[in-house]
This record gives sequence, C-alpha cells and structure tokens, in this order.
Amino acid sequence: MTGVTKELLLEDISVCPPANHTEPIDRAVAESMAMILKAVADPARLQLLSILKYAPNQEACVCDLTAPLGLSQPTVSHHLKVLADAGLVSRERRGSWAWFSLVPVRLDELRSFLE
Amino acid sequence: MTGVTKELLLEDISVCPPANHTEPIDRAVAESMAMILKAVADPARLQLLSILKYAPNQEACVCDLTAPLGLSQPTVSHHLKVLADAGLVSRERRGSWAWFSLVPVRLDELRSFLE
Repeated sequence: MTGVTKELLLEDISVCPPANHTEPIDRAVAESMAMILKAVADPARLQLLSILKYAPNQEACVCDLTAPLGLSQPTVSHHLKVLADAGLVSRERRGSWAWFSLVPVRLDELRSFLE
Repeated sequence: MTGVTKELLLEDISVCPPANHTEPIDRAVAESMAMILKAVADPARLQLLSILKYAPNQEACVCDLTAPLGLSQPTVSHHLKVLADAGLVSRERRGSWAWFSLVPVRLDELRSFLE
C-alpha cells in the first residue's frame, strides 16, 4: 500500500465518526410489523378500532359502524377488510349482517414491539 | 302513521341490532396519529428507529446508518427525512455529516395512544 492510499483511508475514517454500531431489528420482523402499522395508519381505521375497543364485548355490527364515521357502507367495509387482512379484527356473519370483533392480541403485539 | 309503515320500521330495527354506540376517537386526533403511524409503517424506517433506540445517546451519524440497512445513502436519507417530518427524529449537522437523534416523546405519544 502506498503512503498516499494510506493517508486517504485514514482521512475517510476521520470523516465518518467511529461507529458504535447497533444492529437493526431483523428485516422479516420489520416487514411483519410494517404490515400491521400500514393497516392501522389511516384515520377511518383508527376510528373503527376505537369504536370496537369500547363497544360491549369489543364487537359491533357493520350496520352500526357507518353512522359514527359518516362514511358509506362500502367504504367502511373496505376499511374493515384491511383490518381483517392484518388480523386486527375478525369477522362473523350473524343473520343478514357481518359482525366485527377486535383481536386484542394483535394490537398487544404492536404495542410490545413499540416498547 | 299507518300500521304497515310501523311494521316496516320495526322490521328495520330488528334487522340491524340495537346499537350500543360508542363514539369513535376525534377525527383530528385520528388524522394526527395516522400521520405518525404512516411514517413508521415501513420496514427500513422501523430498522432505522431500532438502531437509534439502542445507539449511545440514541443518536447516529447518517454515514453509520447505510451499512446496517444495506441501502444507499440517498435512500436512507429519504427515510430519515420522512421520520424527521413526522417529528420522530431530529437532525443536526456536525462537521461534514448529519446526525440523527431519536425523539422519544413522539414514540411515547404513539404508544400511549395505542393503549
């Protein structure tokens, strides 16, 4: 190695401060959590989750979820599908209506992760 | 009101179960929280936050954040800008390099909200 090359390398090291590397979380974990976070990162979906959280038995009929949000039933159904796909709510048919229940373990998982 | 109309109304009530309405969270709060959640809802940004969280003084030089993520510096800088815009990290210039620090109060706000 020539003196010039060595000098350049030393300069590089001095420019970027010595790293106190901490490893990032595993990419697969980050991807899984980002998927849940994307599902909740919407004002209407946060409002739906908040209704379910405080509803009796943490469940509600889809027909009771449109008025409080001021959105059409297809729009509310779309948001509920996104939440169901992320495992945040579960869906059950009762008579003519779909009922949605909170899956608290999934939100717990998110909270623990953010700790 | 005729008997027929009354019957129809009663039927409507019986189809959609009696609502135990709980009010959703305020729309403005939901929008503000959705904005922070969108900023963290990305695998690379979650990895950046995890590095900062465990780094000495919860800060790191941008030049030390590219290698652990295996991403280019422009890409890392873009992700850091999204986090900074959401108030999750703060930016400071030191010599030739930008340093980023975690803003723990913002993540605390998110965690409290998810409680």
